[in-house]
Amino acid sequence: MAPPKYLTGDKAGIESFIDQFDTFLFDCDGVLWSGDHLYPKVPETIALLRQKQKQLIFVTNNSTKSRADYKKKFDKLGIEAYEEEVFGSSYSAAVYIARIMKLAAPKNKVFVLGESGIEQELRAEGVPYIGGTDENLRREMTEEDFSRITSGEALDENVAVVLSGLDYHPSYLKYALGFAYVRKNGAHFLATNIDSTLPHSGSLFPGAGSMVAPLATATGKEPLALGKPSQAMMDAVEGKFKFDRKRTCMVGDRLNTDIQFGIEGGLGGTLAVLTGVTQKEDLLAEGATVVPSAYVDQLGDLMG
Amino acid sequence: MAPPKYLTGDKAGIESFIDQFDTFLFDCDGVLWSGDHLYPKVPETIALLRQKQKQLIFVTNNSTKSRADYKKKFDKLGIEAYEEEVFGSSYSAAVYIARIMKLAAPKNKVFVLGESGIEQELRAEGVPYIGGTDENLRREMTEEDFSRITSGEALDENVAVVLSGLDYHPSYLKYALGFAYVRKNGAHFLATNIDSTLPHSGSLFPGAGSMVAPLATATGKEPLALGKPSQAMMDAVEGKFKFDRKRTCMVGDRLNTDIQFGIEGGLGGTLAVLTGVTQKEDLLAEGATVVPSAYVDQLGDLMG
Repeated sequence: MAPPKYLTGDKAGIESFIDQFDTFLFDCDGVLWSGDHLYPKVPETIALLRQKQKQLIFVTNNSTKSRADYKKKFDKLGIEAYEEEVFGSSYSAAVYIARIMKLAAPKNKVFVLGESGIEQELRAEGVPYIGGTDENLRREMTEEDFSRITSGEALDENVAVVLSGLDYHPSYLKYALGFAYVRKNGAHFLATNIDSTLPHSGSLFPGAGSMVAPLATATGKEPLALGKPSQAMMDAVEGKFKFDRKRTCMVGDRLNTDIQFGIEGGLGGTLAVLTGVTQKEDLLAEGATVVPSAYVDQLGDLMG
Repeated sequence: MAPPKYLTGDKAGIESFIDQFDTFLFDCDGVLWSGDHLYPKVPETIALLRQKQKQLIFVTNNSTKSRADYKKKFDKLGIEAYEEEVFGSSYSAAVYIARIMKLAAPKNKVFVLGESGIEQELRAEGVPYIGGTDENLRREMTEEDFSRITSGEALDENVAVVLSGLDYHPSYLKYALGFAYVRKNGAHFLATNIDSTLPHSGSLFPGAGSMVAPLATATGKEPLALGKPSQAMMDAVEGKFKFDRKRTCMVGDRLNTDIQFGIEGGLGGTLAVLTGVTQKEDLLAEGATVVPSAYVDQLGDLMG
């Protein structure tokens, strides 16, 4: 496989790379920012691409935030972006449940393990749910809980889907309930995304794939993931935004998520940045199977 | 492989089976009880074996209880047993850290994810630890925690081992700390055991292997497990109790834990019970690779 082209400092190379595309799909965490830390020249780079009339779409696996939350984050960090340009894994999961699974009420309830981003998107799609940010489920598991889950009393018989995302408030009770819904009630097991780690504050923390792992291990099943690199997400993004895949570039920091998402989606190009998970040695490793078209040290390097 | 012999109701078969052995290793959860529910005729069966002068050892993967806690549980349920007869995965892990790893102080501290059983056994072996039942770690993860873990301020530089067991009080903060100790500080990653499920109240709940899964997924490493079927545990049990493996029988409910533990340990026999995880169809499945010598519907069937 051809090695990725290194564009940092290569003014002519950057210009001709950008000219190949009409649409840029951006990963956010690890590309634009890490937690509340904005990477250098990101607002300027986004402004430059807008000035060049590029279509921008922000495709994120972060399930803790809704599209509206994302808009606030862009505003806070001074990046020009619009709610309609955001496509998150929570939205992807909500769309999948509402429009593809199309479960008949009342047996269409979702048991959520995760944060309010998931709840907001489910609500927006009219999907009933329980769990999620319910404070009652953050408490200690009691002997009565063990009995009531065993007997089924503690289970809502209308739950047909267990949807897990990054959960900052895991509890044994939640995992026990999720396990019972899948194992005993045959609920479908979905995940917003399965990234094993989360870039934050310039370091790595457990990601959605790690927080869903107790359920995957207990049930012995892998969840159907609705985030990158799942092509279900690519199809949904394309269905909503319309673009020419050959004139589209995916920009991201993770080879096995972002770059693979772009390559498997048949996009015209992929651009890796080194501000997130992937290190230069990963990119250039002998026998690497997921290789981007090009890479820069940081997104702001596109300013030349 | 010969199919397992079904002993329930077979008085002569039971007698000749028992006569083959001087020592019985017992799994507890799923064999003697499930949670607080005692299975029928268990105290009588244990009494019968004692009357026949058998050596009894209770080998359990449950890490939430210490040997002293176990003694209390036996007493409460009316089963004659002694603290010295109990060999739990917490004890196994503590012995491994103290006597086999032999880390030099002060860099010999253990970060515990789990309950007080682990703490008690570490204390008994003189191993310093943090984490565990510390209420401070059950709180919400803050932005400051993200920063302080990233900078290393929140990490104790003397932590050389992350030991995970069944944790009824998981928190994102604990997983983030455990991940940082392994990933950034190079701490050894151990687990008391890796059972994916826990029999309780006559049903199944997430086990230690499920609750350690976030760390395994985030780090991309499997922990060294000190519980069954690890032969490190068998060696430790034999080292402490002395017995003739050929005259020893392992009794348990899990094929891939208990029965495998006995077979790999070269014991004279293994006896499966159907009160826990394993169902009759699993035992008799075509192509089963872990097959016990014999099985009964429930332990009490040994009373004939």
